[in-house]
Amino acid sequence: MKVIHDIAALRQWRRQLTGPLGFVPTMGNLHAGHLSLVRLAQQHAQHVAVSIFVNPLQFGAGEDFDRYPRTLAADIEQLESVGTGLLFAPDAATLFPIPQTCHIELPPLAQDLCGRSRPGHFRGVATIVMKLLQLLQPDMACFGKKDYQQLTLIRLMAEAFNVPIEILGGETLRADDGLALSSRNQYLSAGQREQAAQLYATLTSVAAQVQRHGLHDLTRLENEAEAALATAGWQPDYIRVRDRRLDPPQAATRDLVVLGAARLGETRLIDNLEFIVTTPG
Amino acid sequence: MKVIHDIAALRQWRRQLTGPLGFVPTMGNLHAGHLSLVRLAQQHAQHVAVSIFVNPLQFGAGEDFDRYPRTLAADIEQLESVGTGLLFAPDAATLFPIPQTCHIELPPLAQDLCGRSRPGHFRGVATIVMKLLQLLQPDMACFGKKDYQQLTLIRLMAEAFNVPIEILGGETLRADDGLALSSRNQYLSAGQREQAAQLYATLTSVAAQVQRHGLHDLTRLENEAEAALATAGWQPDYIRVRDRRLDPPQAATRDLVVLGAARLGETRLIDNLEFIVTTPG
Repeated sequence: MKVIHDIAALRQWRRQLTGPLGFVPTMGNLHAGHLSLVRLAQQHAQHVAVSIFVNPLQFGAGEDFDRYPRTLAADIEQLESVGTGLLFAPDAATLFPIPQTCHIELPPLAQDLCGRSRPGHFRGVATIVMKLLQLLQPDMACFGKKDYQQLTLIRLMAEAFNVPIEILGGETLRADDGLALSSRNQYLSAGQREQAAQLYATLTSVAAQVQRHGLHDLTRLENEAEAALATAGWQPDYIRVRDRRLDPPQAATRDLVVLGAARLGETRLIDNLEFIVTTPG
Repeated sequence: MKVIHDIAALRQWRRQLTGPLGFVPTMGNLHAGHLSLVRLAQQHAQHVAVSIFVNPLQFGAGEDFDRYPRTLAADIEQLESVGTGLLFAPDAATLFPIPQTCHIELPPLAQDLCGRSRPGHFRGVATIVMKLLQLLQPDMACFGKKDYQQLTLIRLMAEAFNVPIEILGGETLRADDGLALSSRNQYLSAGQREQAAQLYATLTSVAAQVQRHGLHDLTRLENEAEAALATAGWQPDYIRVRDRRLDPPQAATRDLVVLGAARLGETRLIDNLEFIVTTPG
């Protein structure tokens, strides 16, 4: 695997490449979920590049930017084990030689769901992703469905700016008890880790109830799910049922997703579950 | 010259192209100034594409979007006369199949100078330019220096998002009396046209005074220039002396530009003049 840290070398590498390029942007601290995105990209493109960059633009004040796990040596080993072609691992001065003065302005969805408690987060994500897309010039890029709102907004952005790219969503990988794989899971104490699968269990339960009872009374279901998490010791942020574009579902909507975010102690976890209703609510 | 109206055909044309592509985005109603940008692009790139699109995103309420001159047949003749390779002339439904939900958020400069009286104008310009750059994938693009603030902000945007492109500024073309060529000149009555060269004369005078007296007391100079235009029957918007990045000049700044915008009746004209001071102010 070639490892590139600076832009001139990246541009040169890109120019000599022939054949489609797939791209997996990450913040490093890779786990099996990231590797599954690399494999997904390999199924769709001849070459695959991964980026590792802990993007300061997407962290708010008081968030975990400073303690976000940085494990480059181990990440490189994992990427080599799955046959990644290129790792682009720039430092902050490379991507921000001057402070970032232009940003991607997203639709109101960016202020909803995770955007409510993380103002500016998706603007920071979209801005770095646009920069990376311009640098890597990939034909397709893979984003995990675990960050469903991110995936949705990146798709919107790519379409809105006519970026010549296909955006693919990779399925969420889970531990045996259902907990979605995430770099932030390692913040959890042993007790918290045992409890953490309750988030996915809650989403599963909400989906089952919607499938049984339909879409009326969604707000009550969502509130009850949040209350159950709070009773179990979580600080719930939101539980919401949406259509696949993350708009509130209409009565006739069949393809749904239930999304949740909640804190266990200091650690904020998110998850979601796509599901289908066969009887309209 | 090939004329393409839809995105699929454009992408196909772009894929088969070998060698550098230069790009000149326009709103049509072409004059000698636009053609000089095509020639500039031809000096720097093997192939040259021009786009014609009257971009609704950059017009405010009450501005001249509806009456902006649309002269496609004459434009095509002119572009062919200078050997343009491709004209991309999409309609609004092609560029906006759904309403534009994402925009380029620019630095505060976008709210200064012309941005003060045209809120959202540069956001609309930057957004359409980013779309066109993603569609055309040019290696370089030419923008006229007459729209100096636009050129400056497009440069900033391209750098901030790592767009792999060189942005070139083309010199302003002028009528014999000094009036900068502009599609909006045709809005002028015969009497207004005679008067219109006063804007450039005012900029020339301000530059000469700064060269003579230095940079102290700029505000007085700017105010006097605005007052002189008002006395002559204009409604001045601003006259400002800035450095070449459009920041207020420092005492040691040598490379300057004086910019002006003013209305004659209903018609808003803009112009600017780069100049150098040899004695610091």
